[in-house]
Amino acid sequence: MSENEKPKVHTLSKDEGLTNGGNNVSSNVSDEMTEKFDLATVYVSDAQYNRNSVFDTSPQTVRLYLLYNHWFMQTLVYVFIIVNLALALFEDPAVVPLPIWLSFIDLTIYGALKSTGYFAIRWSRVLRPLLLVNVTEGRQLRRAFRSIRNALPQIAYVFLLFMFSVLVFSLVALKLFGKRGLLTIDGSPYFTDYVDIVFDLYVLVTTANSPDVMMPAYNYSDSFTIFFILYIVINIYTFMSFFLAVVYSNYKKHLKEEVRQLVKARRFKMCRAFSLLQEARGEGGEPVVTQAKWNHLVKLVKPNISIAHRELLWSVLDDQNKGHIGKFAFVQLADLLSIQVITVKSQPHPIHICFPSMYNSPVSRFIRYVVHHRMFVHVYDLIILVNAVFIGLDEENPVVSNAEWGFLVLYMLEIILKLYATEPRAFFARHHFWNWFDTIIIVSALFGTIINSALKHSGGYTGRQILDIVFILRVLRLIRLVDTIKRFRAIINTLIKIGPTILTFGQLIVVVYYIFAMVGMELFKGKVQFFEPNSTSPDQEYCGNPLLKGTTFAKLNYCKNNFNNVVSSFIVLLELTVVNQWHVLTSGFTAVTHISARIFFILFHIVVVIIIINIFVAFILEAFLVEYTVDKSDLQTSLEKKIEELELNVQQDGVDTGLVDAMESNDNELGPSEAAKQKPSLMFKIASRRSRTVDGLLQRMFETEIHPEDFEEEEPENINFSNPVFDS
Amino acid sequence: MSENEKPKVHTLSKDEGLTNGGNNVSSNVSDEMTEKFDLATVYVSDAQYNRNSVFDTSPQTVRLYLLYNHWFMQTLVYVFIIVNLALALFEDPAVVPLPIWLSFIDLTIYGALKSTGYFAIRWSRVLRPLLLVNVTEGRQLRRAFRSIRNALPQIAYVFLLFMFSVLVFSLVALKLFGKRGLLTIDGSPYFTDYVDIVFDLYVLVTTANSPDVMMPAYNYSDSFTIFFILYIVINIYTFMSFFLAVVYSNYKKHLKEEVRQLVKARRFKMCRAFSLLQEARGEGGEPVVTQAKWNHLVKLVKPNISIAHRELLWSVLDDQNKGHIGKFAFVQLADLLSIQVITVKSQPHPIHICFPSMYNSPVSRFIRYVVHHRMFVHVYDLIILVNAVFIGLDEENPVVSNAEWGFLVLYMLEIILKLYATEPRAFFARHHFWNWFDTIIIVSALFGTIINSALKHSGGYTGRQILDIVFILRVLRLIRLVDTIKRFRAIINTLIKIGPTILTFGQLIVVVYYIFAMVGMELFKGKVQFFEPNSTSPDQEYCGNPLLKGTTFAKLNYCKNNFNNVVSSFIVLLELTVVNQWHVLTSGFTAVTHISARIFFILFHIVVVIIIINIFVAFILEAFLVEYTVDKSDLQTSLEKKIEELELNVQQDGVDTGLVDAMESNDNELGPSEAAKQKPSLMFKIASRRSRTVDGLLQRMFETEIHPEDFEEEEPENINFSNPVFDS
Repeated sequence: MSENEKPKVHTLSKDEGLTNGGNNVSSNVSDEMTEKFDLATVYVSDAQYNRNSVFDTSPQTVRLYLLYNHWFMQTLVYVFIIVNLALALFEDPAVVPLPIWLSFIDLTIYGALKSTGYFAIRWSRVLRPLLLVNVTEGRQLRRAFRSIRNALPQIAYVFLLFMFSVLVFSLVALKLFGKRGLLTIDGSPYFTDYVDIVFDLYVLVTTANSPDVMMPAYNYSDSFTIFFILYIVINIYTFMSFFLAVVYSNYKKHLKEEVRQLVKARRFKMCRAFSLLQEARGEGGEPVVTQAKWNHLVKLVKPNISIAHRELLWSVLDDQNKGHIGKFAFVQLADLLSIQVITVKSQPHPIHICFPSMYNSPVSRFIRYVVHHRMFVHVYDLIILVNAVFIGLDEENPVVSNAEWGFLVLYMLEIILKLYATEPRAFFARHHFWNWFDTIIIVSALFGTIINSALKHSGGYTGRQILDIVFILRVLRLIRLVDTIKRFRAIINTLIKIGPTILTFGQLIVVVYYIFAMVGMELFKGKVQFFEPNSTSPDQEYCGNPLLKGTTFAKLNYCKNNFNNVVSSFIVLLELTVVNQWHVLTSGFTAVTHISARIFFILFHIVVVIIIINIFVAFILEAFLVEYTVDKSDLQTSLEKKIEELELNVQQDGVDTGLVDAMESNDNELGPSEAAKQKPSLMFKIASRRSRTVDGLLQRMFETEIHPEDFEEEEPENINFSNPVFDS
Repeated sequence: MSENEKPKVHTLSKDEGLTNGGNNVSSNVSDEMTEKFDLATVYVSDAQYNRNSVFDTSPQTVRLYLLYNHWFMQTLVYVFIIVNLALALFEDPAVVPLPIWLSFIDLTIYGALKSTGYFAIRWSRVLRPLLLVNVTEGRQLRRAFRSIRNALPQIAYVFLLFMFSVLVFSLVALKLFGKRGLLTIDGSPYFTDYVDIVFDLYVLVTTANSPDVMMPAYNYSDSFTIFFILYIVINIYTFMSFFLAVVYSNYKKHLKEEVRQLVKARRFKMCRAFSLLQEARGEGGEPVVTQAKWNHLVKLVKPNISIAHRELLWSVLDDQNKGHIGKFAFVQLADLLSIQVITVKSQPHPIHICFPSMYNSPVSRFIRYVVHHRMFVHVYDLIILVNAVFIGLDEENPVVSNAEWGFLVLYMLEIILKLYATEPRAFFARHHFWNWFDTIIIVSALFGTIINSALKHSGGYTGRQILDIVFILRVLRLIRLVDTIKRFRAIINTLIKIGPTILTFGQLIVVVYYIFAMVGMELFKGKVQFFEPNSTSPDQEYCGNPLLKGTTFAKLNYCKNNFNNVVSSFIVLLELTVVNQWHVLTSGFTAVTHISARIFFILFHIVVVIIIINIFVAFILEAFLVEYTVDKSDLQTSLEKKIEELELNVQQDGVDTGLVDAMESNDNELGPSEAAKQKPSLMFKIASRRSRTVDGLLQRMFETEIHPEDFEEEEPENINFSNPVFDS
């Protein structure tokens, strides 16, 4: 992709090598050099993105590998994965049935099998999401799966002990309550069958049948509650906390170990890249890399890097201005590249350029002063609060609906004023989340309201879709209130920082849900029917399945909780994750199939509620603790120090929150008009969002632990740690 | 209490002082010396038990303080607290109504107030449990309360943001669903009133009304589930995890700080004690304490310490055998005393002494060999498994009931054989939990079964109480199976170690429950009536209150869930803690009183589920992580090292569990008969149970951090950290 750039860069010595310390420059860039640069580029970008693929170092392979790592190819892979997963929407049972010719091949194979008498279940669908896990880009997800796999033995032992406890309690329950002739609320015998007792007590662990399962015994005698209190304390609280503790400590341990390995592998790759480009030029004859080669390499690795940014990086590495850097400095390149640096250019306002006299007139100055004043923010907070009350009122009242226009005008005015007072490119800088948020919400609301009233006046239109969107947009405006309270902003920022971690978890849960949805659809599709509310079918009362007659499932009108397509399957699984009424859903689906269907639901509970949700809590706990307890100064990179040293940093309001320091600078309040006077025209800002994820933090933590001296040239001991999970 | 011991101990120099380095011995122990020893004793025992009372150092006060710290006085305090708290059982509404003359005084005051027209609520009852918090011994509890108080501001901010989120979601719900004319399952309008929506969505956070609250919207349109999915992800999972993270990180931070302060205060007290007893005798003239004085002090502090144990402690401190110790060694005494050391005396079996030839006969040897063989344990595991099956069978079957006698005989035989093969005092050593467990269970079961069958044969007796106990004892026998699987034993041992921490939490929950129970009784007593199941009263259907007619509360027969006495109040509060059907209970009690009663239940949810339960999970997490991640070798005390050095340690089977090392030695399998040959007759073993609680571990962790050099003589900077919580 960057072959044609080569002649432009600093020319390089042809016989570049370890022993060559000379400065002889040749304008002929040899193929060998190109190949070396290609390979070095691969090493550096692998190091930067923590890729651990093993590849052949021959020039052709390297070029193919570079192609494979191109963003287009990677996007293609994701598109294929999404298409593959989305097939579930169109396959039988389908949300959107496909035209028959598209499903033809699938149908012929499946149909052929079925017609020849084979019992065909498309189990391949269950395994589909594993593609997401096994692709190179599923690193984070793979790591999460590995953490789970590594924690499994420990979880299994605690789970077995927990099950032992449930079995023993069930035996006591059988002996205590079985012969007393007690009845449950629906008149069936209470605690007489051992297997049912075990199931009921397992359900109690999910808390879904509390306190109903206790009531018959409690009504009989107060002292029987001791049994249930012990059960709740031991099996709900102690064991469930224990599961969290096991998951959390294992997750932490394995994550640390993996990150340690990653850091080692990254060092190793950077050393490889260094040895490709090195030349012996230092004082003691130690190998170094020249600035020219380094510049060329950086351009190859990150083609769209700005010159200012590249120069900043070089000045960080070559802090003594020697013109070349040693191995220790070179190795840091991968880390530096993965830190997002925002280049803030302090430019004059376009109106200032076009109409300087107008922009600097007293009126204009006063407007800018007002907009940047603290009271401006407070006045708009008040407006939002008043708006909140109006939203709560009945919108059919003409006063309310007219007021809405007033609010819209006020909000538009705010944005226009801010754009007048602040340089538009600075206002819409990528990291100014709230500016983007405001503008999008307000402009959409404006359009929505206009379209809605136009349709209304043209008459006839009664659909509420657009109105719904307008209402939601109106309410979303209120969220901006959060931003004006410092403490809230800090919490929100912590949540935003935890975001990437939650996304990894989101992928994990999609994979697990998908597998369970596929199995659930095979087991339960069509067993429970949903009838539209205005349907007059007599089957509606028992969800179209006589087996459900009189069940709580049908009584509570749960007919739409079924596995008839992938969307409703996901919703049922979400309900099962929230756990409440777990036993009602379970008994509904066992009623229409077989008692053994309980296994599916228990398995789902174990996998999702006991393991995955605890992993999620562990994620959040760890992210929060790292955010909260790790000393910030330890993590300030050399880059940040350099930026500060050069006085090129964008001033951030020190939001002393106690939770985290604020991520967003308060540019709303401090416009560039005053600030620009003293500041240089080009400034940098570390986009902390990405570099301070849990992984990033852990990596930096371990990097301080691993001594810079021991750069091993050997392969890291455990090179196969990045292999997909499911092949061993 | 030990004044009369004084003449017996090593005599001490009369003019003991800093400048006196001589060895002149006087047999006259002066009053001054006694007073000094009293004061030193107070300092050491305060250091040992982490007491931080400020007291006058005058001799009289010190003697009174010693009396106050006597175990009898402390027990008395606890008895008073329990009696005070137990008053709730007898007061109106009472579980056991007291004879009128006992409640006379209470009644006169309360009655007088009431008859003179004052509205009398005995709010003092609500404050009663605070006595438990404020007493000197409630240290742990106070610390927990302080942790909560310190975490409150942070929790409050997250809670406010969470409530903001609930309010915004409610507004969206009102706008989206309010005008659609949807109906809930019981026919009432769906999401039309803002306050009700907020309540319903708050209930959804407790998960108690999932998925019912979603069903009308879901039945109307699939896309409405997006609203609920977002709500569940944000408000249930993210915010609830966030609460845990905030509670956990604050709990950890404050606990560490407190322990650091405790360690400092302890050092300070030991230094005080040292300066009272020191004399300048070291090489450089530095102050030391002689063995004689030390012995006397230890006897005063711990009167029932064995001579062997005392000598072991001295040998740890005076490891160069100088006959005196410096300040550094002296300060360690408090820590050493708080480590429980079990003195294991290897004695010959009593039968061996009485009938040596019989005990050493080939048959006897063979029996002992068999009992100590691994197969013996396995055979009994098998017997227990078979027993488990028999317990599950119908006990009215004569085969089963006769088999029970067989099992009892087998278990008795096991205990007798073990007692024959193992020295009885070693068998019943305090730390052999499972031996005690077995013996108590089996002997009780034997007596129970005999009494039961005797009563049965004498005819007429149909009560099931004894039979119930016998059944429970039978099932409890099965628990022993856990002990034979190493991994399970390790988990159980971790649980046992976490035990003391859980007990502190138990006190905390009792205090909070008590307060809520008292308030609940004032608010709801007598509002919901329970009728015995065989009652024929027509009021039974609606719990004696017409307001409950047709409510889910009455339909589910929740009449016994009421606040009519303190026991049922506690049970209702437990049900509210488990959260399921939270809204049914809440709506029941609001139906019989007023809608504002919701405040009581929401407050309970915030305090118990959001704060207290998270504290509990934090407790367990921290205890588990400390158990699991702290390097064991760091924590091995000098005492353990010394015991190992002297080769006086009891061999423990290295149960390599990965979770924790096993607490109990496998004496069952390794009898003393073989082992005694090589071992010395007196051995020590660290009872790890107590010294490895979270506090103990944290203390040791911080002790390594605080350098031994900086023994400040000054008061620790923040001396008032131990003051009761509620006075500031």
